[in-house]
Amino acid sequence: MTPWNAAKPGDSLNDIDTPALVLDLDAFERNLQRMAQALQGHKVRLRPHAKSHKCPEIALRQIALGAIGICCQKVSEAAVFVKAGVKDVLVTNQIMGASKVRHLMELASVAKIGVLADHAMQVQELAYAAQAAGIVLDVYVEVDVGAHRCGVAPGDEAARLAELIVASAPLRFAGLHCYQGSAQHLRQSQQRAAAIATAAELARMTRERIEARGIAVEIVTGAGTGTFLHERDSHVYNELQPGSYVFMDRDYGDNQRGQNDIAFEHALFVLTTVMSRASADRAVVDAGLKASSIDSGMPSVWQRKDVQYAKASDEHGVLVTEDAATPALGDRLMLVPGHCDPTVNLYDSLICIRGGQVEALWPVAARGALL
Amino acid sequence: MTPWNAAKPGDSLNDIDTPALVLDLDAFERNLQRMAQALQGHKVRLRPHAKSHKCPEIALRQIALGAIGICCQKVSEAAVFVKAGVKDVLVTNQIMGASKVRHLMELASVAKIGVLADHAMQVQELAYAAQAAGIVLDVYVEVDVGAHRCGVAPGDEAARLAELIVASAPLRFAGLHCYQGSAQHLRQSQQRAAAIATAAELARMTRERIEARGIAVEIVTGAGTGTFLHERDSHVYNELQPGSYVFMDRDYGDNQRGQNDIAFEHALFVLTTVMSRASADRAVVDAGLKASSIDSGMPSVWQRKDVQYAKASDEHGVLVTEDAATPALGDRLMLVPGHCDPTVNLYDSLICIRGGQVEALWPVAARGALL
Repeated sequence: MTPWNAAKPGDSLNDIDTPALVLDLDAFERNLQRMAQALQGHKVRLRPHAKSHKCPEIALRQIALGAIGICCQKVSEAAVFVKAGVKDVLVTNQIMGASKVRHLMELASVAKIGVLADHAMQVQELAYAAQAAGIVLDVYVEVDVGAHRCGVAPGDEAARLAELIVASAPLRFAGLHCYQGSAQHLRQSQQRAAAIATAAELARMTRERIEARGIAVEIVTGAGTGTFLHERDSHVYNELQPGSYVFMDRDYGDNQRGQNDIAFEHALFVLTTVMSRASADRAVVDAGLKASSIDSGMPSVWQRKDVQYAKASDEHGVLVTEDAATPALGDRLMLVPGHCDPTVNLYDSLICIRGGQVEALWPVAARGALL
Repeated sequence: MTPWNAAKPGDSLNDIDTPALVLDLDAFERNLQRMAQALQGHKVRLRPHAKSHKCPEIALRQIALGAIGICCQKVSEAAVFVKAGVKDVLVTNQIMGASKVRHLMELASVAKIGVLADHAMQVQELAYAAQAAGIVLDVYVEVDVGAHRCGVAPGDEAARLAELIVASAPLRFAGLHCYQGSAQHLRQSQQRAAAIATAAELARMTRERIEARGIAVEIVTGAGTGTFLHERDSHVYNELQPGSYVFMDRDYGDNQRGQNDIAFEHALFVLTTVMSRASADRAVVDAGLKASSIDSGMPSVWQRKDVQYAKASDEHGVLVTEDAATPALGDRLMLVPGHCDPTVNLYDSLICIRGGQVEALWPVAARGALL
């Protein structure tokens, strides 16, 4: 819907119109490699979350490096990736509503699709629709292992729902979804380790209760960029769902790294221009909250300790500076978004750069895929 | 970029897939009428801000009811509206960068375009480009009347910049931009009145300094939904720029209304579905922060005092409730977004409803027009 693109392949960094969402390809590719290496030799598979990037170009590269498939959060998001050639998508969400269920069945007829449930009513609706569509659908029980959002209680409640899925002919009970989202940004490494130890113990206990009923639990899936090494080493989880590691953001950068934690690099930036320098202590840039989501706090200014991004309005960012001359009007700065996922969702394309040049534009094809 | 629409004309409210951005046409039309009536008989013209709606269907209705034109915040946003038939756009922003200036000149060759400046360098670049393009461009001096964002200091500093514009042959000095953004959400009516009294006094003084130099100040423009009656009655402002009044949002709704303030109605909603009801005190809906921007706080739940929207993550909203049965799984709720502008920017279309039916889909044609 933008009437023109911020750049075209071959442009130099200085030619990019602002604000623009810039992907540093070298850093991005190193992040992909680091993740692949971190899981090498471990009995866990990688199913990265595509809600972070919404970009088929990225998903296909993740899969080429060993990912089993991807996660999506929305049916319409999954549809974009299936259309782009992704053959295995887990929709890590409950699906309510006739239109969504119908679209989910259409996808499941052309790709391997999984979905979550935390209530008998969802299981019944999925079973009815799968029956009508003549397909077998993978359904996971979502277990609340500490995030207190969706998910049934660990233990017998989860086991009863697994039994219901097993008893629903067109559905296949695929395993447990045990994502501990609230652990991802605990700032201390030990806090994150402790939260995942608890989550893994709840997942293990739940798995055992289900197995005690004679039901196999093939997959225990979860984990995010802040904690995935703990899930990897838990001997409970066998599938990991990190998403943000491809980009990183200011919020993940604020986590204190533990001894073994992997140093993912900032690869995603909002390129912005100083458009007003009317006051000695203030520089105003052209990237506000429609250019860099502030739900997880302000962006930081990349490699600039002399300026702080203090305040965002819709189309303006106010930087505090003690120097009346620097940054100067017209200067260009790189922001590290506070939160990568909703920031990417504001753009139609990623401007991919390497060596100071634009190498490609990658469509954020699932941008706005809310349904 | 959404693979399918949330609804089609003729659908009932219950058919709309969620989350969806819903416009109550009756309430919206009453809001347009209320604004037109409020300005009737006053010597001020209306130039509503289109950054709030990004929707040509709305801009054309505002103009049909007497608006002189619209404001935009970005050049690419202005381009969308010009293409849709809007003939008079004020870009209420400083424009830095060769690409933006070039596009601005292209627009100014087919429509009446104004733009702001708060620095001599901007004036020089605009003058150079206007000269090259063979056009005359309206330039306004932005004055900081209390918001402390962009804008030169009131008084002589503004007058010097006005002189520079007058001296720059291809530019026309069109007036003063005196928007007091930080006054809009002061909760008490008297606080807002006091902030605009100060702003108007600074604008008046600046106008007089410029007129003392023999330069006419044709337009003094500014105002927002929270304060526009004060600017209307100031005898200084003669153009008003409110935007949010067409929709309203939770943040504006939280303002205490003064005696004369107009009761604009909530016309914009995010329709959402309860997708998880796994806990007695918690209902999770399918509208998170990618569906309703939380920069100005959480959405409220329309006409439901029994539930509060407590927490948003990317694709989930957690509602706190004291009733384990209500709202039930699958129930549909209407949210009033915390902030209308960035919420609208998340959607490709407004689902326009009347009498419980979908009447039309209006494209949010300038969604994502960041450049």
